Amino acid sequence: MRSERINALIEQYRPGYGLPAGFYTSPDVWAADLGVLSPLWYLVGHTSQIPEPGDTKIVSLFGESVIVVRGSDGVVRAFYNVCSHRAARICDESAKGLRQFTCPYHNWSYSLEGQIKSRRLEVVFDETFDPDAHNLRPCHLRVLEGLLFLSISDTPTDFDEAYQPFEELFRFYGMANAKVARIHGFPVVANWKTLVENTIDPYHVPVVHPNFTKTRTPAYWQAAASTRTAEVIAAATQAEQEMKEWEAALTQLPDVTGVVVQDGRHDEQFRWLVRGPLTPGYQSETIGGKRVAPLMGRFTESDEASVFSNFNPLDSLFMSADHATIFNIRPLAHDRIYWETMWLVDKDAEEGRDYDTEEVCEFYTEVNAEDFPIWERTYQGATSRAYRPGRLAPQESFIGDFQQWYVRRLREQVDAPEPVSV
Amino acid sequence: MRSERINALIEQYRPGYGLPAGFYTSPDVWAADLGVLSPLWYLVGHTSQIPEPGDTKIVSLFGESVIVVRGSDGVVRAFYNVCSHRAARICDESAKGLRQFTCPYHNWSYSLEGQIKSRRLEVVFDETFDPDAHNLRPCHLRVLEGLLFLSISDTPTDFDEAYQPFEELFRFYGMANAKVARIHGFPVVANWKTLVENTIDPYHVPVVHPNFTKTRTPAYWQAAASTRTAEVIAAATQAEQEMKEWEAALTQLPDVTGVVVQDGRHDEQFRWLVRGPLTPGYQSETIGGKRVAPLMGRFTESDEASVFSNFNPLDSLFMSADHATIFNIRPLAHDRIYWETMWLVDKDAEEGRDYDTEEVCEFYTEVNAEDFPIWERTYQGATSRAYRPGRLAPQESFIGDFQQWYVRRLREQVDAPEPVSV
Amino acid sequence: MRSERINALIEQYRPGYGLPAGFYTSPDVWAADLGVLSPLWYLVGHTSQIPEPGDTKIVSLFGESVIVVRGSDGVVRAFYNVCSHRAARICDESAKGLRQFTCPYHNWSYSLEGQIKSRRLEVVFDETFDPDAHNLRPCHLRVLEGLLFLSISDTPTDFDEAYQPFEELFRFYGMANAKVARIHGFPVVANWKTLVENTIDPYHVPVVHPNFTKTRTPAYWQAAASTRTAEVIAAATQAEQEMKEWEAALTQLPDVTGVVVQDGRHDEQFRWLVRGPLTPGYQSETIGGKRVAPLMGRFTESDEASVFSNFNPLDSLFMSADHATIFNIRPLAHDRIYWETMWLVDKDAEEGRDYDTEEVCEFYTEVNAEDFPIWERTYQGATSRAYRPGRLAPQESFIGDFQQWYVRRLREQVDAPEPVSV
Ligand code: FES
Ligand code: FES
Ligand code: FES
Repeated sequence: MRSERINALIEQYRPGYGLPAGFYTSPDVWAADLGVLSPLWYLVGHTSQIPEPGDTKIVSLFGESVIVVRGSDGVVRAFYNVCSHRAARICDESAKGLRQFTCPYHNWSYSLEGQIKSRRLEVVFDETFDPDAHNLRPCHLRVLEGLLFLSISDTPTDFDEAYQPFEELFRFYGMANAKVARIHGFPVVANWKTLVENTIDPYHVPVVHPNFTKTRTPAYWQAAASTRTAEVIAAATQAEQEMKEWEAALTQLPDVTGVVVQDGRHDEQFRWLVRGPLTPGYQSETIGGKRVAPLMGRFTESDEASVFSNFNPLDSLFMSADHATIFNIRPLAHDRIYWETMWLVDKDAEEGRDYDTEEVCEFYTEVNAEDFPIWERTYQGATSRAYRPGRLAPQESFIGDFQQWYVRRLREQVDAPEPVSV
Repeated sequence: MRSERINALIEQYRPGYGLPAGFYTSPDVWAADLGVLSPLWYLVGHTSQIPEPGDTKIVSLFGESVIVVRGSDGVVRAFYNVCSHRAARICDESAKGLRQFTCPYHNWSYSLEGQIKSRRLEVVFDETFDPDAHNLRPCHLRVLEGLLFLSISDTPTDFDEAYQPFEELFRFYGMANAKVARIHGFPVVANWKTLVENTIDPYHVPVVHPNFTKTRTPAYWQAAASTRTAEVIAAATQAEQEMKEWEAALTQLPDVTGVVVQDGRHDEQFRWLVRGPLTPGYQSETIGGKRVAPLMGRFTESDEASVFSNFNPLDSLFMSADHATIFNIRPLAHDRIYWETMWLVDKDAEEGRDYDTEEVCEFYTEVNAEDFPIWERTYQGATSRAYRPGRLAPQESFIGDFQQWYVRRLREQVDAPEPVSV
Repeated sequence: MRSERINALIEQYRPGYGLPAGFYTSPDVWAADLGVLSPLWYLVGHTSQIPEPGDTKIVSLFGESVIVVRGSDGVVRAFYNVCSHRAARICDESAKGLRQFTCPYHNWSYSLEGQIKSRRLEVVFDETFDPDAHNLRPCHLRVLEGLLFLSISDTPTDFDEAYQPFEELFRFYGMANAKVARIHGFPVVANWKTLVENTIDPYHVPVVHPNFTKTRTPAYWQAAASTRTAEVIAAATQAEQEMKEWEAALTQLPDVTGVVVQDGRHDEQFRWLVRGPLTPGYQSETIGGKRVAPLMGRFTESDEASVFSNFNPLDSLFMSADHATIFNIRPLAHDRIYWETMWLVDKDAEEGRDYDTEEVCEFYTEVNAEDFPIWERTYQGATSRAYRPGRLAPQESFIGDFQQWYVRRLREQVDAPEPVSV
């Protein structure tokens, strides 16, 4: 019955127009969405948050609490934060230098590698007790140039295939040698798709984000319109010329420039990796283009460019020569989101001397504040009986790609739901 | 399945007794109630709130946000507050003197008459883009002597047939020349029927509302009991005599006195229009009967009377010679209501000089405060397993009429639900 | 369909392991749980709270509001707090010395024995009005040595059969001559079974409750492990010896010592009554064993012992020679609980002179604060996809008994749900 309703919505969808309202507003669709989203990998933090053995970071993802921990061997692993005895949540909060995990309920303890160490001395189970069945349940975790990726699926998508193409550029930008300057989050009343569609929408930028708009040339914004009027063609030519000039001036990087990855409607992930020039004179993606922190990675001077990458519909990363910004959409229900932003700078930069955290965070703090009311009011529109899937503008072709990707994945999910091992 | 449960409740209903509990407490019934309520017209404001072209009032009704706007031509219209592009809510709040509507997401703009004016200059849709399909979606709106009536139905009931009978009296009371003295609202945990039944219940007034009780004669309250004991008959005779004396003293109005409209269980709306004398010496429906504002409409002296009108189960209007009060029950869920009160005085009256807002609002502010705990505790009773539909008293015949009206409309709704055009 | 899902959960349950997650997290199971719980009797207060005719205590149980009242004849009765007219909740709060109940909506009134006295003088119903059908609806209430027990079922379990065995010991401990020293409650985000399993779990005590642990000897805690290692056998022998010595020293009570009642998986209630020695030198179940109030009942000196009784899964009572403590688990939803604690001392004890309330409440206030995070984090674990029903330790056999009792009762409930008379 639930899948009948979802199939009816899928039938109503017309590519080139917005999604039917139920895709945003229905709790049933949200339940199926979990199946669409869960096989993917999510960017949940940075290794600099857990530098030493026994350091932990507690991650919350799709309602699950997960312990990310650096083991005695220095390897980073992840475990569900659930005791194998009577299921008490083991860790309250991120911690430093733990020697083991001890459950506060009956003191069962586990090694940093998740193996059960004791079920309290005075309790003797008989020989039918299988210790191996009582280790902490592991969660898939991978590290890519310092970035921590987690999947709560038992059969996640192929990590290497998905993210190997990102590696070289991330290394160049020094992601593995970064540290966290600030984390900030807030709740949003909207569907996750409302936020995704906003994140990949260049069409709203000149209207909503004046300072972001200034980071790219006027030609850049005009060229984004795919309809070929004389004016747009002129702009596209101009933008192409700007890109060429920027590439010519770029001596540091041998090959990784421009678009390297752009997943479309037929791919498994919904990935992107785009590199392109900022407005001439802009050293960094900041208000006015000023540098806000020491250069990172292999930079000896700014490339006056910016990288935008998407690892899946919910997580994105913007890199400049001097800092990087991570955005996480964390859906809590069909109409509730937690939106989190994390800023990274070089690990050797010193707050106060080399950078001012307020200055590093100023740009995207403003962008977030500008988008927040847009997210909520767009979701409100989807709840109205007057809602009609609107015609997408030429500049919104990425949104159309996302919607086709989503509808295809949802149909697969409804036809063959991922087994939930509970 | 849902309609089976509702039909079972309908079967349980016995006229003369209260409604079975599920009519108040079931979310399923509430979903069907929306179909019962939506074809009707709702009193959502007064033209004085939008005196000039470009003035808007944002109305919230049954979860919909609607823009009521005075056009360049001076005509008042209503539009759903949803952009035709990607559905962003266009207006946050009521405003003055707009020249057009501009959506904050991508700056598509619309004329005050709802026609699309631009989809941003740099975007060119091809010839398949139909501008007429992208106008703002209109909402039915009518004005009756300054009172704004809205329906979110595509096929609302016949407005003229319903409210033409109210017109002459509203003109006499100067409704078109009124202005808003205050608006005040608060949330209530109850079902909307709990509040309707309280609003039309004279039986509770002498118990709960001492100052309201004093505005009518003792005979009035006693006569309301339809059981004919000697005492009640004497009171009724007395009340009739009082009415005659009041009518005799009334020279201003040729014919519109006493009851002119009283919808019963067989009518489409649930309307009332009753005019009757106040306690001798009472100039207005206030504490102690004092006048609290300049006379309105064609009054040259007070008629020492009051008009009570109901336009539907949720909206009512009380008029005295010097001020008027509007009540709106706004259901948000089966168990949540927003209750709003609006006070009107003559548009030429000046605050401070001609009237004191506190004094104008004092009477019904007190009545609201007295009713509020009654609403919540009556709803609480409906959630108990000890709840039994109680026997209605003779003075509660209006409630019986409402319940029969409601059950009939609900049955029609379950049999043939209004098509919801989403 | 609902019962299919519950039956599937019942099939998954394996004795000796924890319950499958759905028993804690599913709203459907909670709806069925109400049928399991409602035939039982609940401890809702003490007669000392309503000493005089007309004194009332308003009790909230499973969403119902109930008036417990001492009648003019001194007898304590209970009525649903719902007016027979239009269902208004009659009493807001507990009161003293009422002469009758008067509904605030239309002033219908009822005697303290629940009989309708008037439906307002001026209202005359005709001869078809049956006053007896409009009395307050009674609720089953019983008093056991001052303790008030309520059932909202029309056909509750046999009270005398269930609780007669408790009577003699409660009389000895002076329960009928107690008074309330303090009541304290707070909300918990958890399932009621999470709290029950914690309440009857000796295994967590040495880990979570250091001061509670000290009230019993080390041998006591070790002996609780049923696996027969040499160490445990030695401890059990030691604990048995301690019990014998305590019994030998006990001259006051002829026979009621040790375990007198222990309901298992096959009984109707889930009752317990256990009496046993405290750590030598402990006069009372307090921090350090100090006496905190005058001796109660027939005690002339402390028995250095404690009684633990459970009347059903939700209500328990701990008695020392000088004070007693009542715990009530009050489920509000599948994931919300109100936890209330009530402390009793002898009715003739005078605050300030004979006891200090802070001192009386100190011990279990601390125990509650220690358990609260355990309850919430255990419930959180049940919501995880990593949850697996864990192997129960030998010391958790009571939990296994409770789970088997519960699953059996639930199966009966699903097969033949108790008729709900609405
Ligand atoms: S629940 Fe973790 S040790 Fe018992
Ligand atoms: S949503 Fe209104 S202009 Fe795009
Ligand atoms: S509801 Fe109690 S008297 Fe009317």
